[in-house]
Amino acid sequence: MKTVSTNKTFGGSQGVYTHASTETGTEMTFSVFVPDHAPGENLPVVWYLSGLTCTHANVTEKGDFRAHCARHRLIFVAPDTSPRGEGVPDDGDAAYDFGLGAGFYVNATQGPFAANYRMRAYVEDELPALIAAEFPSDMTRQGIMGHSMGGHGALTIALRNPDRYKAVSAFAPIVSPLNCPWGEKALTGYIGADRDQWRAYDACALIKDGARLPDLLVDQGTADGFLEDQLKPELLVATCTAADQPLTLRMQEGYDHSYYFISTFMGDHLDWHAARLKA
Amino acid sequence: MKTVSTNKTFGGSQGVYTHASTETGTEMTFSVFVPDHAPGENLPVVWYLSGLTCTHANVTEKGDFRAHCARHRLIFVAPDTSPRGEGVPDDGDAAYDFGLGAGFYVNATQGPFAANYRMRAYVEDELPALIAAEFPSDMTRQGIMGHSMGGHGALTIALRNPDRYKAVSAFAPIVSPLNCPWGEKALTGYIGADRDQWRAYDACALIKDGARLPDLLVDQGTADGFLEDQLKPELLVATCTAADQPLTLRMQEGYDHSYYFISTFMGDHLDWHAARLKA
Repeated sequence: MKTVSTNKTFGGSQGVYTHASTETGTEMTFSVFVPDHAPGENLPVVWYLSGLTCTHANVTEKGDFRAHCARHRLIFVAPDTSPRGEGVPDDGDAAYDFGLGAGFYVNATQGPFAANYRMRAYVEDELPALIAAEFPSDMTRQGIMGHSMGGHGALTIALRNPDRYKAVSAFAPIVSPLNCPWGEKALTGYIGADRDQWRAYDACALIKDGARLPDLLVDQGTADGFLEDQLKPELLVATCTAADQPLTLRMQEGYDHSYYFISTFMGDHLDWHAARLKA
Repeated sequence: MKTVSTNKTFGGSQGVYTHASTETGTEMTFSVFVPDHAPGENLPVVWYLSGLTCTHANVTEKGDFRAHCARHRLIFVAPDTSPRGEGVPDDGDAAYDFGLGAGFYVNATQGPFAANYRMRAYVEDELPALIAAEFPSDMTRQGIMGHSMGGHGALTIALRNPDRYKAVSAFAPIVSPLNCPWGEKALTGYIGADRDQWRAYDACALIKDGARLPDLLVDQGTADGFLEDQLKPELLVATCTAADQPLTLRMQEGYDHSYYFISTFMGDHLDWHAARLKA
C-alpha cells in the first residue's frame, strides 16, 4: 500500500492510498478517514460505495461525513467504482454507465471484462483484508452504505454476507438491476444473458431468494431524475413487505440525486450505523 | 442574474448564479446557500472569500458549511476570486498567484489589469447590491470570512468598512501583503510600485493607520506550508497587541492549508458569526 496523501482533519486523518490489486490486476485507489483514537484502540469501519462515474474522491470531497465519523469515532472507507488504467477494457462508446467508473460491484464473467472487473471480490474480500492489516480497525464491527450503483453494491454485498455487516443503508439505491436499464445493460455486459445468474446481484431477488438483514435504511429524493426509470424504490418496498424484511424507506421531498442530497442525510446514516456498530 | 443550478440541501437551497458585472466588465459566477425560511423573512448574510486558484466552487463543494448555516439560518455567499473570460489579461506566465484566480480583492490601477481587476469594488459594492435585491437577505446583519488570499480580503474589506460587518474571521489569512512575496507580487502588479498605496490592502497597515473592529477570529494550522514565508500571523498578533485591537488567534496543531483544515473549523467560525449577527 502506498500513501498518496494524508491531511489532518476533524481531529483525525483523511488519507488517500493506492495498492496493486490481485483481484482487478490494476492499481486501485481508495480513501480512508481515521478519527482521533488512543494508541492500540481499534475502531468500527463504515464502507461507502459510490455511484456511476465516481471515484473515491467524490464522497471524500463532498460527503460531509468527517464531522460525524469523528463524533462517533468511525473509520470511513471509500473504494473506487471500477478498475482503471492502461489495458482495462471500457465500453466501446465510453458510456458513463458501463466499464470505467461503472463496475457495478460484480465479478464479471464475460469477454474482455472478466479479467479486471472483479469489484465484488475486491470490495468483499481483498480490500477488507488490507484495511484490517493497515488501519486501526475492528473488523467485527463493520457497516456498509452506498449511493445509487453503490447503494446497489451495499445492499447486495450485505445481503450475501449478513453476518459481516451490523448496519446497512443506502442513498437512492438501484434496488433491482433485473428491472432497470442501468442494471440490464451492466449485468448483460458483465455476467451474460442468463438472468438467473443476475440474482446474486439484485437486492430484491436476494431477499426473495431468502436473504435477510436485521434492518435497512434507505433515503430517496422525490426530485431524483432517475427515480422512476432506474431506482424504483417501490420494488424494494413490495419485496420487503412480502418477505417481512424490515425496511425504513424515507422519501425526501424535493431532493435530487446529487451529493447535495447525500451530504444532507449523511449524519442520519452515520447515526444509524453508529447505533448498530456500538450496540 | 442567471441561475446556473439550484439543489435542495440541508433543508435549503444551494444555488450557483452568473451576472454581467459592470465593475469587472465580465460575466461573474457566485454561489449562494439560502436556508429554509418563512415567506418574507430575511436572513443574515455571511460572505466567504476564497484563496488563490479558487472559484466559488471550492468552498461550495468542500466547505462543510451548509449544516451550520442551516442550523444558524445564515445565507452563505461565495464569490469568484478574479474576473475571467476572453480578453481578461492574465499573468504572462499563467502563474497561480497573479491574474486569473488571484484578484487579491483590489481595484487595480496598473496597465492592462485596471479595466477588469476590480474585485474590491465588486465584492464591497456591486455583489452586495445584487444579493440585497435578489435574495431574502438582511443586509444590516452581514459577516465576512475568508481563506488565505480571501482571509486577506475579508480582513481588509472589514477594516475599511467597520460599520458594515458585525463579524469577521479568517482561515490562514495573508495578514500583510506588504511583507510577503505573494502580496508584493500582486500589489506591485495591480497597484504599482508606490507602497503607500498598498496600505489600504494590508490588514496590519490598516490597523496601524487606525482602523478597528470589535474583534477578529483567526485560525491557522501549524503544518501549513505557507505559514512562515507568506502568512506570518505573528505580524497580526504584534499589530493587534500594539493597537489594542482584539484578536483571537488559534494555532491549530498539525493542520495544513487545505479545505481539510477549513472544513474542520468552519462550524466554529459560523458559530462566531451567528453569535454576533444575532446579538
